[in-house]
Amino acid sequence: MKHTPILACIVALVLSPLVTLTPSARADEGMWLFNAAPVDRIEQEYGVRLDDDWLNHVMQSAVRFGRGGSASFVSGDGLLLTNHHVARGQLVRLSTPERDLIADGFIARTLEEEMPCDGLSVMSLREIVDVTDRIREVERAAGSASEAEEARRRLIAQIEAESLDETGLHSEVITLYAGGLYHLYRFERFTDIRMVFAPERAIAAFGGDVDNFEFPRWCLDMALLRVYKDGEPYRPKHFLRVEPRGVKDGEPVFVAGHPGRTQRNLTVDHLRYLRDHDYPHRMHFIHTREVQLRVFAEADPMQARQAPRELAGIQNGRKGLGGKLVAMQDPRIFAEKVTQQESLIEAIRAMDDDHGALQAFEDIRQAMRTLPSYAQRYSIIEGAPLGRSELFGHARRIVRLVEERAKGSGDRLSEFRDAAMPGVLENLNSVTVIPRELEINRIESALLFAADVLGGDDPTVQTMLGGVSAAERARELVNGTTMFDASDRVRLLNGGREAVWNSDDPLIKLAMAIDHEARRLRERYENEVEAVQRSAYAKIATARFAAFGQEQYPDATSSLRLSTGRVKAYEQEGQPVEAFATFAGLYERHAERGPNEPFDLPQHWLDAKDRLDLSTPFNFVSTNDIIGGNSGSPVVNAEGRLVGLIFDGNRYSFVWDVLYTDPNSRGVSVDIRAMLEPLRIVYRADHLVNEMVTGRRPR
Amino acid sequence: MKHTPILACIVALVLSPLVTLTPSARADEGMWLFNAAPVDRIEQEYGVRLDDDWLNHVMQSAVRFGRGGSASFVSGDGLLLTNHHVARGQLVRLSTPERDLIADGFIARTLEEEMPCDGLSVMSLREIVDVTDRIREVERAAGSASEAEEARRRLIAQIEAESLDETGLHSEVITLYAGGLYHLYRFERFTDIRMVFAPERAIAAFGGDVDNFEFPRWCLDMALLRVYKDGEPYRPKHFLRVEPRGVKDGEPVFVAGHPGRTQRNLTVDHLRYLRDHDYPHRMHFIHTREVQLRVFAEADPMQARQAPRELAGIQNGRKGLGGKLVAMQDPRIFAEKVTQQESLIEAIRAMDDDHGALQAFEDIRQAMRTLPSYAQRYSIIEGAPLGRSELFGHARRIVRLVEERAKGSGDRLSEFRDAAMPGVLENLNSVTVIPRELEINRIESALLFAADVLGGDDPTVQTMLGGVSAAERARELVNGTTMFDASDRVRLLNGGREAVWNSDDPLIKLAMAIDHEARRLRERYENEVEAVQRSAYAKIATARFAAFGQEQYPDATSSLRLSTGRVKAYEQEGQPVEAFATFAGLYERHAERGPNEPFDLPQHWLDAKDRLDLSTPFNFVSTNDIIGGNSGSPVVNAEGRLVGLIFDGNRYSFVWDVLYTDPNSRGVSVDIRAMLEPLRIVYRADHLVNEMVTGRRPR
Repeated sequence: MKHTPILACIVALVLSPLVTLTPSARADEGMWLFNAAPVDRIEQEYGVRLDDDWLNHVMQSAVRFGRGGSASFVSGDGLLLTNHHVARGQLVRLSTPERDLIADGFIARTLEEEMPCDGLSVMSLREIVDVTDRIREVERAAGSASEAEEARRRLIAQIEAESLDETGLHSEVITLYAGGLYHLYRFERFTDIRMVFAPERAIAAFGGDVDNFEFPRWCLDMALLRVYKDGEPYRPKHFLRVEPRGVKDGEPVFVAGHPGRTQRNLTVDHLRYLRDHDYPHRMHFIHTREVQLRVFAEADPMQARQAPRELAGIQNGRKGLGGKLVAMQDPRIFAEKVTQQESLIEAIRAMDDDHGALQAFEDIRQAMRTLPSYAQRYSIIEGAPLGRSELFGHARRIVRLVEERAKGSGDRLSEFRDAAMPGVLENLNSVTVIPRELEINRIESALLFAADVLGGDDPTVQTMLGGVSAAERARELVNGTTMFDASDRVRLLNGGREAVWNSDDPLIKLAMAIDHEARRLRERYENEVEAVQRSAYAKIATARFAAFGQEQYPDATSSLRLSTGRVKAYEQEGQPVEAFATFAGLYERHAERGPNEPFDLPQHWLDAKDRLDLSTPFNFVSTNDIIGGNSGSPVVNAEGRLVGLIFDGNRYSFVWDVLYTDPNSRGVSVDIRAMLEPLRIVYRADHLVNEMVTGRRPR
Repeated sequence: MKHTPILACIVALVLSPLVTLTPSARADEGMWLFNAAPVDRIEQEYGVRLDDDWLNHVMQSAVRFGRGGSASFVSGDGLLLTNHHVARGQLVRLSTPERDLIADGFIARTLEEEMPCDGLSVMSLREIVDVTDRIREVERAAGSASEAEEARRRLIAQIEAESLDETGLHSEVITLYAGGLYHLYRFERFTDIRMVFAPERAIAAFGGDVDNFEFPRWCLDMALLRVYKDGEPYRPKHFLRVEPRGVKDGEPVFVAGHPGRTQRNLTVDHLRYLRDHDYPHRMHFIHTREVQLRVFAEADPMQARQAPRELAGIQNGRKGLGGKLVAMQDPRIFAEKVTQQESLIEAIRAMDDDHGALQAFEDIRQAMRTLPSYAQRYSIIEGAPLGRSELFGHARRIVRLVEERAKGSGDRLSEFRDAAMPGVLENLNSVTVIPRELEINRIESALLFAADVLGGDDPTVQTMLGGVSAAERARELVNGTTMFDASDRVRLLNGGREAVWNSDDPLIKLAMAIDHEARRLRERYENEVEAVQRSAYAKIATARFAAFGQEQYPDATSSLRLSTGRVKAYEQEGQPVEAFATFAGLYERHAERGPNEPFDLPQHWLDAKDRLDLSTPFNFVSTNDIIGGNSGSPVVNAEGRLVGLIFDGNRYSFVWDVLYTDPNSRGVSVDIRAMLEPLRIVYRADHLVNEMVTGRRPR
């Protein structure tokens, strides 16, 4: 008998002792910049000195995967390790009606068998340069917050372009502390990536949505890819060597990855807006869409094959975002954030110079107060008027591209700046098959959601519906568009503004018809909210540095971070949960809840049971401070050797969005031993094991 | 290949020719009062004269089932026919861990085997008395709309009490035309009802949620119960004789049942409120709850057994309410409602006396304009603060009962008036097992929903959360309450106000803590909206009678109605859909989509295939004007003989909520032949077939 809470169970989370704003409050808290790691504190806490070589080696071994997600080099021949669920999109694209890589998995036994992943790029960080001063200079010269915003945007585009020219490296200016610091990150970028190994969905995501964010777990959530350069396996200078003996309970472990977003430094007014408006609105969409997708899949077997990828994303969002929302709705958590802010304000008041921070709190309060009056229109009409429609995504991209590319990089909408342009064009050129029925369903769903939220008389909703029912409109848009085909898209784009303006394509016409209103809303949001926040948070960050010193970490922004922790058991509803789940537990869970999805196991896993050492650890938990985007991050030991692979957090980790606590919040990893043992025994892929263990592909 | 639209496909609905407000626009439109059936028009259209005997016979054979739903007497020994899904609640209550009546069905082969349905009551209408004049009198004497509302409420309670005293019959004053007329309905009420026959879920709801509201269909959605009086089978004066030959394509058919609610006479401002606020809010809850329930069921096999009943209700609501919303969001449907209203206003303006109707439109507009500012608080805090929690339902019932029973019947909250009191007490006394884990889930879900919608700082939300997380609060409320047990509930109630006020039961304390605010919101809603609407719609109805004559039908209000129509094929997305689905189609669908749920079939249905005549009709469609609440309604032919059993509408019927159209909207029935043939061949229940065919139980 088991009661599973709806989203996250924050119950047993004991806020003890008081979490303060000072960075030393909790040993394992922090998503540290690689160029500002608190090495003394780490040595003191874990007895490990992470010197510059260690940090540089791990930093250069880490890889940013695609548009979000983490990975690492694990051999000198460019072998790349990430999560199955991070590589899932690639596996779907490589699948055909005859060859279902999600269901059946994949192993390349030779280089020739490795399958190119069209449209995928990965990046490895090479250098970090602080450019804060240059940005502060143009900000100071500007009059208003929105002028400063524009000047900053231009300068960032210029810095990125200069850096690319100068170094040939992909260059991005990263905003830290919500504007407190600006760092230029230079990456080596790779676009020839090939699939090497992926297990079956059944073992990669054993337990499915039911066990997602739970522990104990038994997920072989791994995939191996290989980076190529000039047609040959890439030979990285730095890669992580594996530690086949794995890790012990209590041992210190370090995670290098790309946490997507935390909101720990937001003001209480900002958090209140997220808790009462933004998150509930997004959950409203997620719940609605999940039901529609399940119904879509249940109605027809062919549709059932189109739905899983979007459904997995939606369900992950439901648990992840939902968990964050639930955490903020816990009155104790919110009270703690209020206390934190009060302490900060008190400390600021005690200083001679408040660096404008006190007014900054007020500015954010005002921006958050007016935002709800147009937030939902902004979020729908600019954010996703046709929901997750890929076809509309292409149509809008083309409509905007012909406008934006005529401007200087710094004047463009951010997603069309020079640095982002290769990604935009790759996307338009992608030959991925877009499933027609799913697209109709997505668009119908989005039209209905827009009418639900904005009302049937909203002029943009009326434009979107075009005078007919949502179902009819969706069919008319999808059946009339040419956006399915990459060559058609590129042809239209090449025709330029005139071709686009004269296009009869109903999705192009719709994207054009609502673009003015969408841009108007975006401009309003950027001026009244983003610009105000950026300026205000920069002031608050400066004041916080002045009050509490420099040894702090910025909120996550998908930039590379180091987190420290220990393998550690915890308690759930009064019951102890051990730090390691073993192979024995996998087969027990299968016996108890299988044989049907999501507790099914591939036949050769069932057959291999007797040949596996059932006491081998499968997944483990640690106290490392991670969040969504860390998926695929390598877990290394004090020697910098690979001992695990982050793939999840437990149900108590949702609160980490706004507050780090550790009595029972944990990150969840695949143990290195659960990668090597099945590769050898279940998949008979000794060549991959050898490559990982020796650091070189066997020849 | 099949695209299933998200909710309802209004696409092919052609609004031709113009639907007007005059009652003669469409032959099959109308939910007629039995005391005001348009017999001349019916004769003209169908060539059938429905005389007073016919009407009285059918009226007295019809039965109102439980708290909503329809049924009819089908033998002189009190045999009652309704839908399986209408009797589903009873079947769940009669099930035990050892005997699952939903999965396995049930047949009583003797009177002794018939199983008493605790807490169920049914009513059969005996007499209708127009009491409009008495009510108008007190209304005229009142000063304001809210005073009139109160005076009306008191008088209605008095009329009902007098009638019960006088006749011994259960008496209810029914509001028609939203206040245009008031009729006193006198019912014979029965409380000893026993289960006789129910098929397995697999065949009763073949196709499940996937095929719900679709056609062709193959659902044996029937159940047989028996009404007892004084311990013996009741012998009704009137019951429907079956027509074993069934019905033919094109034949006129008549439905007598209890349509729950239509909104065809609402003003455009009122409809706009429903479309843009009320329905989307309710769908928001439904979508959220459906996801949570599915997740709850998937997490644990024991939980999976608790969820289906609520899930079925939620899914039905999602399709039903969702379909109505989608219909209103179709710009053409809404434009049609605007045109209707313009025609009506034009006709009213053309008269010498507008009966106050023009101001009434304005009054409704004003009421609808302020409602959104507190509608969600009202709907949550008064409507369902803890969602579908049965435990909280009991707690609130007790808290309110000790207050309300001290007042005169007319001064009470409507659900505690004398006429309703037996139901309230039955409910408190019900020994139905309330599943603990499901209750925790319901309450957690409702707390989170309240915080989502009303915000974390709402004082009532804070009271509901009690300072802890939703999950913790839900567990604390459920594990601390005594509301599980009928005897505990009755003991507390018998302790009176003092016992309740001093109770330590956390649910009682919560119900008390929010009761003031709940009642305040309800009072505001009743005064500012309901009272205004009632007065305004009465004026509009009077003006409409004056403009278009008396031969009209009121919107559905769960009172008994007669609807007329024909068995008739239609088109769906350009493809013809035949009027009858046969047994052959059932086995084809099973072969195509089975053998898993919801397309599974019981083994003896598979075994019986060769013995069944596969050309026998299973389900059929007709143009009868029906809506939710008609479930279980008998379908009779011109001779008043039973030929079918309404159980659903097709996907095009959702629009009937606001507008009757018939090009492809249809009601869906179980054919009488699909009841008799399986009873004989699959279930070997000749005794029931004989009883239905001869009108007497074989002895």
